[in-house]
Amino acid sequence: MIPELKYDAKKLIPAIIQDISNDEVLMLAYMNRTALEKTIKTGKTHFWSRSRKKYWMKGETSGNIQLVREILYDCDEDTLLVKVEQIGTGACHTGNRTCFYRKIETEQPNK
Amino acid sequence: MIPELKYDAKKLIPAIIQDISNDEVLMLAYMNRTALEKTIKTGKTHFWSRSRKKYWMKGETSGNIQLVREILYDCDEDTLLVKVEQIGTGACHTGNRTCFYRKIETEQPNK
Repeated sequence: MIPELKYDAKKLIPAIIQDISNDEVLMLAYMNRTALEKTIKTGKTHFWSRSRKKYWMKGETSGNIQLVREILYDCDEDTLLVKVEQIGTGACHTGNRTCFYRKIETEQPNK
Repeated sequence: MIPELKYDAKKLIPAIIQDISNDEVLMLAYMNRTALEKTIKTGKTHFWSRSRKKYWMKGETSGNIQLVREILYDCDEDTLLVKVEQIGTGACHTGNRTCFYRKIETEQPNK
């Protein structure tokens, strides 16, 4: 069921989480093979925490879980794109809906 | 202009590339500080190739360049989200518009 994927030296693969309701990119976190299996089996996103060195389910404390609707992988087989239904107020522990709430100011030479 | 970002052990930071016209996630690649500076300065996405160990501009051979419209960074300051205008046929070297053109079949327990 799970295709051959290329995990990094730490046996991790980045997973982009996208809100299926409006296509907003919510967050990026890391899975290993087991976290991906847990995600598929439960239908809720599970990750490997690099800092805490343990598995975590998104929303396990906040209740803001993510219901998996689609899992895609890229041409190089080294990145996942998980489309989810985001439950609750959002994906970010700061209270924002998305973790990408800050912009780098650029001069935008193309404008 | 560039905020404090957390680069990994190889001094890289993942950059999610999203099509600003339809919010499709096109690809993920890696930048270092210099690639990010090149991206900001030129308004075209530049990355560090981990396999070829050199800088590359997206579309430098295909012509399918990406014009930068917005650069965001996440709450942990360890991931970038770059919204682009994709020029040409698409982002993927396979000819697909997005690199995420394959799906992992799941039983979808939430459906």
